[in-house]
Formats: sequence, structure tokens, C-alpha cells
Amino acid sequence: MKQVYLDYSATTPIKEEVLEAMMPYLKEEYGNPSNIYSLGIKTKKAISESRGKICDLINANENEIYFTGSGSEADNWAIIGILNAHEEKGKHIVASKIEHHAILNTLKHLETKGYEVTYLDVRRDGILNPDDFKNALRKDTVLVSIMLANNEIGTIQPIEKLAKIAHENGTFFHCDGVQALSNIPIDVKKLDVDMMAFSAHKLHGPKGIGALYIKKGIEIDNFVFGGNQEMGKRAGTENVAGIVGFGKAAQLAKSNMENHIAHCLELRNYLADEIYSNIFHSKVNGSMLKRLPGNLNISFSYIEGESILLMLNQLGISVSTGSACSSGEGEPSHVLKAIGVDDSLIHGTVRFSIGDFTTKEDIDYVVSSLKTITDKLLELSPLYKG
Amino acid sequence: MKQVYLDYSATTPIKEEVLEAMMPYLKEEYGNPSNIYSLGIKTKKAISESRGKICDLINANENEIYFTGSGSEADNWAIIGILNAHEEKGKHIVASKIEHHAILNTLKHLETKGYEVTYLDVRRDGILNPDDFKNALRKDTVLVSIMLANNEIGTIQPIEKLAKIAHENGTFFHCDGVQALSNIPIDVKKLDVDMMAFSAHKLHGPKGIGALYIKKGIEIDNFVFGGNQEMGKRAGTENVAGIVGFGKAAQLAKSNMENHIAHCLELRNYLADEIYSNIFHSKVNGSMLKRLPGNLNISFSYIEGESILLMLNQLGISVSTGSACSSGEGEPSHVLKAIGVDDSLIHGTVRFSIGDFTTKEDIDYVVSSLKTITDKLLELSPLYKG
Repeated sequence: MKQVYLDYSATTPIKEEVLEAMMPYLKEEYGNPSNIYSLGIKTKKAISESRGKICDLINANENEIYFTGSGSEADNWAIIGILNAHEEKGKHIVASKIEHHAILNTLKHLETKGYEVTYLDVRRDGILNPDDFKNALRKDTVLVSIMLANNEIGTIQPIEKLAKIAHENGTFFHCDGVQALSNIPIDVKKLDVDMMAFSAHKLHGPKGIGALYIKKGIEIDNFVFGGNQEMGKRAGTENVAGIVGFGKAAQLAKSNMENHIAHCLELRNYLADEIYSNIFHSKVNGSMLKRLPGNLNISFSYIEGESILLMLNQLGISVSTGSACSSGEGEPSHVLKAIGVDDSLIHGTVRFSIGDFTTKEDIDYVVSSLKTITDKLLELSPLYKG
Repeated sequence: MKQVYLDYSATTPIKEEVLEAMMPYLKEEYGNPSNIYSLGIKTKKAISESRGKICDLINANENEIYFTGSGSEADNWAIIGILNAHEEKGKHIVASKIEHHAILNTLKHLETKGYEVTYLDVRRDGILNPDDFKNALRKDTVLVSIMLANNEIGTIQPIEKLAKIAHENGTFFHCDGVQALSNIPIDVKKLDVDMMAFSAHKLHGPKGIGALYIKKGIEIDNFVFGGNQEMGKRAGTENVAGIVGFGKAAQLAKSNMENHIAHCLELRNYLADEIYSNIFHSKVNGSMLKRLPGNLNISFSYIEGESILLMLNQLGISVSTGSACSSGEGEPSHVLKAIGVDDSLIHGTVRFSIGDFTTKEDIDYVVSSLKTITDKLLELSPLYKG
């Protein structure tokens, strides 16, 4: 059976060149980077080179990138670390309603510890209104957390503008960059964020390795205490192979960025057009312009997204109903709620995400399968009156 | 040149069977375990099977093992998580002076947050006195953290006895099991600890993956907030390949335990005897009986451990001066200090740690190299009067 993977936003396969770069560190180069004999020096050097490659991709300075165990850990560290280091500055935080759960559930936890959080609405197109943002800032607003690109609907926030407003207010700015990295150019100097979170497995690197950018001079508490790894900021023997894989993935992403974006855009727009033409009861969620090139999020009326997903799966096609992290939770997407999608439509939503290995044939197969499936489900639907 | 690795306590090479088990999850099985289509279901199942294998090794129940990014993260989570979940119980903590930095630096941080820590002495043999331990416990002692086996001198604490005393006082017991796992049998039910931390790369698994055992019924705050991974306790897309590697390594460790211990004991005792016979100015640190089978920690008078390490390295031999995590920090080992070793001897200390791939020929090569090197260093030493 043909296999089509259209869930690149959930995770991506490790690219061959990435795995090749990792292999020595899963075999003979097993030294602990903290050791000062040859075996240790070689892995330490490998880590440093990988750090450099990630810096290159986002225009960071050396020693502004700290490796973590995941994007979620990076998000948690940014938020908890900066608040703990600046307790005297205030207890108010501003975030958008469409942040990832790694942000929202951290903030929910902080609300039980005396912090106050303002959750900002987004417009119907999924973008924050800078005026709303400005109005939400207070004297005691110590931190803002706004994602660069949304994981469900792919919409891209005007981070540069928002960070400027935050800094004029003396507020730290954290940006969740997990979905954006490799899919749009990121220049941390231009965005002028204070912290930014990333994850390797979204860009054909391995799972289990993330990174936090911390702008030079920003004071932030450690998240994991112990040994002197990661310039003394994050203890624990380093995931050397994972770090090397992340570095290689970043290097490939940089050299491939233009092609990647053009390829994803072309196929995404083709998919959108084909679905629009063939399936009348469908509707795109979020801005089609300020959006990740590979993302398409569509609500189908009268039918369940989960049924579509499972029937597509039987035909070898992988897609998501929402963010992978909230799949199986049964709760309607907070992102779709925030942009004003009806509950019934939220349950009929599917996220397609396109990547480097997607072909036009894949899209044709998905559209024809989708047409068959949605026709069948429509027939069975008690909601559809014909 | 002959290569001899005698630093198995710092890290271990991934075993072939372990890497073989991991490979599918670095290649075609790349699904995100949170997804409900086939690719996701397969990785979710792989995680669950690995969890089972680790439970088997330590006699835990299913769902008492939570994966982390490292042993240090597991230690941090245990301590910070239990304190945050039981703030009303008190602000006093008891730990030994020879805990790993992942414990000690976490406690140091907590002291700045209003916690009080009693650091217990150990005896000259590196073992805690249970009476001292009992006397240190107070009504407001909420947590005890004592390691099972020390990373520098390998000494093994009477955890079962200590946990019983702690529980009689209504105090939670965390045990750092990172160095012990696979090197001595561990039965969490028999030890009756509330939490226990582990790391895969110490038992021929990959780096970047650890685990925390949490006894059923023990309430502990989350460490990373976000998605529902790890039964809702530790968010972040799972390091599937790492987890599978950890599971395989645990399975091998279980079936190989008896041989492993016998092999390490035999070669360790041979090494100790050969050094004793050939190098007069040497002395073992810590009990030789209550000690990890592969560990040997020796102080050489009049000379620097770092010089020995670097000269051994030139002959292809890898050993440590202290714990890998504190290497290069230049501070004298807190463990050797705690058992009363003189500062001058601390600086002359080398840790040899033996593992499955060590051979008798390796030991002979190390001893003859060591003899040459220490003779040379002794000649150069301004401290040695002949």
C-alpha cells in the first residue's frame, strides 16, 4: 500500500545525512564530554561544532545556545528560569491563547504559585493584534511568551514588533520557535527576543533533543542543577549523538531553506486548491498568507476529523486532527476555539503538514482518498441534510 | 596503539544489541507516539515495552517508571517535585556529604529558597552511620536523599535500613541509583524507596535518556509541563530511540547481572592487588567490601592524578581523576574530603572503573603503564624525598 506522511508538524523522519553524522557517536565515539582524555575531548568538540551550526541557522552568537531534552523543556526552562531569576520584577505574565501546551500548562502551574497571566485573544486569522498586546502590558509584567508560528494552524506572529513593544515596557520576551525553525528564516538578532525554544525532531533531527537560545546578558536560573555541562546552565551528561544530529539537521535546513519553502508552498497551495475544488463542505482555518509554508488546517462540516484520520490511516496516509501533543486527549483544540471556529467544526478539523519528502503524487492520492472518505462519512452523517 | 577504557563509571559504549534495537526508531519508525495513526501507535508500543523492561530490572510495577533526559534531570525532578508537592510538610532536608552534584547543587539552590539542609558525614570507609542518620531526622524533615552507590569511590549505602528509619519519621526517601543500576541487583520494593533515579548510558545504553522511579501513590509535581507524555508527568515528545535503547540495555543487564558482577569483581581485585604489589605509594579509598564490583579509587602519594591521567591517555588508556562531572573543575573531590583523605592525596587520586569489555590483558597493560608513569612522576616530584 502507498504510504503518505502528511504530519511533518508532528515530527519528521531523520534525514540520512543526519543519521550518518550521528552514527560515530552511537558507536566508537562514546567518550563522556566532561572527561579530559582523548575520547572525551572528541565528543566535547563535536558538541561545540553542533552548537555553532545551530547558531548559524538563527544568527545567534556562540554560547547563546543551550541544549535541552526537548522543545517543551526549553519552553519550561525559559519561563520558569527567567521568573525565578527576576522575582523582584513582578508577577504578571502575558501570553497568547494559542500558545503550545508546553507554554500554557507551565503558566497554569504558575498561576497556582501566585503569578497572574493575561491570555491574549488572536484575530480570526490567527494573528495577534499588536495594540491588544501593548494594552496588556503592565508595570509588573515581567515576561511575555508568544510563539513565532503556531503548531496547529501555522500562523506567524509579528514577533519583531511585539518584542520591541515588550522591551519598551522593560519586559522579557520568550518566543516558542519549535514549529518555525527550518520552515521560515529566523534571525534572533532581528527579532530581538530574549529567549527562543527549538526542537530537533521538527527539522529531520532526532527526537529527545531541543535547545534554548538565551540572549547574551539575560540572567536566567538553571533548570537542571548538577555538573558543569552546557556552560554550567543545564546539568546532565550530554546527548552527544542527539546534539550532533541536531547540528547536522540545522546545517541542512540552512542550506536547503529556499528550496524547502518553495517546495512546501507549492504542494500546500496545490493541496488547498484541490480540497477546495473537490470537497465543498471544507474551510481553511487561519491566514493563508502569514502561515508556515507546509501547513494546512481544514475543517470539514458535518463529519468527525478523527474518523477522517482513521480512515486515511487505513489507506496509508498519516495526518493529525490537532497538535500531536493534544491528540487522544479528546478536548477540542484551544487554538481553533481562539480563532472562533464552532465546536462542531473543531471536531471536523484535520491538519495536513507537508515536508521535503512530499510529492505531487502524494497530494493527488491524499485528495482522492479524502474525497472518497468524506463522501462516505457525509452519507452516514446525521448532521448533513443533503 | 592499544586502547584500554577503564572509565565505565563515567559512561559506557552502547552495546551492539542495544544499537540494533534502536536503529528502526532512528529510521523508518519515526512516528510521534502521541499520534493515533499506525506510525504513532508503533512507537507508543515500543515505549511501553521499554518501560516494562526497566521495571523488570528493578522489580517496579508498570507505570512507576518515568523517562527523563538524564539521570541528573531525574534527581532534580525527584527533589524539586516532591518538595513542591508537599510544601506544608516542612522545609528540612537530609543528604549525605558524598551525594552526586546533581543532588548537592540542587540542594544548594534550595537553600537559597528557604530550605534547610543537613549534610551527613560518612565514615572513613565511605558508608553512612545509620545512627547519625536517625539523629539528623526532625519533625519537619520532608525529604532524605541518599545515593545507593557512590560515583567516585563506589561505596554502597544501607538504603533498606535508612529508608525504614526515614519512613518511621514520615519522611520521603529519594535514592540516586545512577551508578548502581546494572552493577548490583536493585529491588525497589525491598529497598522501599519512594523515588530512585537512573541513567541509560551507565549500562551500555545511549546518552540523553534517564528515568525516575516513583512509587505508586507518591505525589510529586511535574518537572516539565506541556503535553500528556509519560502519563501526564513529563511533557515533551519522547526520545523513542533512546527509550528503546534504555529498555534493551536494562534487559541485557538483567540477564547478564551475575556474569557482569563476577567479571568486574575478578578484574577489579586483580587490578587492586597488582597496584598494591607494584606501586608502594598507593592506597585504596573507601571500603573494599561494600563497593561496586567494577570500581577502584586509588590515591598515589607525592604525584598529581591529572598528570597520571594525561600520561595514561598518551598510552591509549582512559581513566578519571574523580567523577566525570567534576573533571576539569579543579576543585578537590568533595567525596574524598568527606572520607578524610588529605588534600595532597586527593590531588593524587585516580578512579579506575571496569566493565564488561575489560580483559585481563587490559589490566596488565594498565598496571605496567602505571608503574612506568608513577616512577617517572615520582622522580620529578619535589614532594618525594626518596
